[in-house]
Amino acid sequence: MRNCIRYQDPGTASPVLFIFSNAYYVYLNSQLFHAFTNIYIWQYILETSVYPREPEPLKELRDATADHPRCLYVASSSLLAIAHVEDRRELFENDIHITGFLFCRAFIAAAPDAGQLIDMLLKLVNAKKTIEIGVFTGYSLLLTALSIPDDGKIIAIDVDRKNYEIGLPIIRRAGVEHKINFIESQALPVLDKLLEEHENEGSLDFAFVDADKGNYKNYHERLMKLLKVGGVVVYDNTLWYGTVALPEDLVEELVDGEHKKEMRKHIMELNKYLATDSRVQICVAPLGDGITICRRIY
Amino acid sequence: MRNCIRYQDPGTASPVLFIFSNAYYVYLNSQLFHAFTNIYIWQYILETSVYPREPEPLKELRDATADHPRCLYVASSSLLAIAHVEDRRELFENDIHITGFLFCRAFIAAAPDAGQLIDMLLKLVNAKKTIEIGVFTGYSLLLTALSIPDDGKIIAIDVDRKNYEIGLPIIRRAGVEHKINFIESQALPVLDKLLEEHENEGSLDFAFVDADKGNYKNYHERLMKLLKVGGVVVYDNTLWYGTVALPEDLVEELVDGEHKKEMRKHIMELNKYLATDSRVQICVAPLGDGITICRRIY
Repeated sequence: MRNCIRYQDPGTASPVLFIFSNAYYVYLNSQLFHAFTNIYIWQYILETSVYPREPEPLKELRDATADHPRCLYVASSSLLAIAHVEDRRELFENDIHITGFLFCRAFIAAAPDAGQLIDMLLKLVNAKKTIEIGVFTGYSLLLTALSIPDDGKIIAIDVDRKNYEIGLPIIRRAGVEHKINFIESQALPVLDKLLEEHENEGSLDFAFVDADKGNYKNYHERLMKLLKVGGVVVYDNTLWYGTVALPEDLVEELVDGEHKKEMRKHIMELNKYLATDSRVQICVAPLGDGITICRRIY
Repeated sequence: MRNCIRYQDPGTASPVLFIFSNAYYVYLNSQLFHAFTNIYIWQYILETSVYPREPEPLKELRDATADHPRCLYVASSSLLAIAHVEDRRELFENDIHITGFLFCRAFIAAAPDAGQLIDMLLKLVNAKKTIEIGVFTGYSLLLTALSIPDDGKIIAIDVDRKNYEIGLPIIRRAGVEHKINFIESQALPVLDKLLEEHENEGSLDFAFVDADKGNYKNYHERLMKLLKVGGVVVYDNTLWYGTVALPEDLVEELVDGEHKKEMRKHIMELNKYLATDSRVQICVAPLGDGITICRRIY
């Protein structure tokens, strides 16, 4: 982000939430994120329906993840400033008027509201054999492990085991580690190796993908072979902070770094690609950072 | 709504979209509605993923419904004005500054984005016998009829057959009328009559409820007997224009009529009730006007 205002409350060093037109911008760690759900509605859903039913180990794992530098909303109960921005040019000035504050819980990886839908899908497909591409600290992994039966199996792939180890003690205490086969690796070689064994074709009930966006299409091609007919794959971040719906020139100004812009392009391509893929029935749900559910038809 | 500004563009007689804090208000027919999803994201999901896959008869039915006076967003391509409101007191003044316009498609009954998730659920539970409480012009009914197999059956209940008859010619042309048993009646007597036959217990795979909110809890009790274990019921309007997340005093000022306020209370009670009902697994999704998915566990 080139010149964007970097408001920081001196007392709290808290990030800033901008409101521009009918979009929200969350300003954090020198980057501007765009969130697409009304934050009060989001809190209402979480407090009324999600948290009262969230298993204790998942709460623990969220708390253990909250201080991780990759968190979108830092630390639990962090303070967000609210500003009204009449014109997006104001974002480039420094005298922006902060009109209020609100508290916001920490989230990263699969958000708990998306988690509740993922758990529902796991039960509906009666998932026993699953795969997870991109683990991070393991929120969706633990959710899956808690949901599938005791003899269920999860292949969990991530390039970095260190983050997984943040969640691992909680996964152990929850008594579900035996269901998980963690593989520290790039995902494509693992998927290709699985496909070398003919018996792995059509063997998986469920897949969750939250990894490098540039490879989602490659993962999809392999998953269409590994998933059984009627099986489900869920892709995370398919609304990419809401930037998929922003006009190109606004993205140029607001989104920091070529990498983030490239990821947005990958996600937009994926969304178009999935919309025309006759092998799957799809559904896009604005939960978490946007998830796309694909059910394999043939 | 007591004193709220009634802005109307003289040329278009169009409704007004207010933006206050991080909430959107849609002003229409002398009432103020609160919408919770960023409208650009909503359009993106519809245009990228929902419309390209929406069966032709469902598009037709949406168009046939668009002029119905109960439509939340009137007529297709209606114009909404955008205003920035710094303080909600401004809503009670008349010199509000309109800063932009946007086009909005017509929706009522099950919104197409919610419809896509409902269709996914129908397939995942392998629905064959379903029930629909509240039909209106039949969007979700037609969606269900198109989704279930040729020998599938839908019991469709509504107090008013006239609205159903708007959609009926399209349902007929789609060749799925034989799956529908339409009953013009209050729903409770029909459900109670079904429960008199022991064989109807646990016979339904799926239920969709979009009717009088004050009876949702009563419907739920009966559906917990009629649905099979593993079956799914979807309740519509469980975020009630987003008003469930508004503070009580703001609702008092903004929501027009005792009836609407009472409905909000019913919905809020239902949400709390479902969150503690151990018979079901639940998920709240901010699609359409908010849907709550319940899967019967035992």
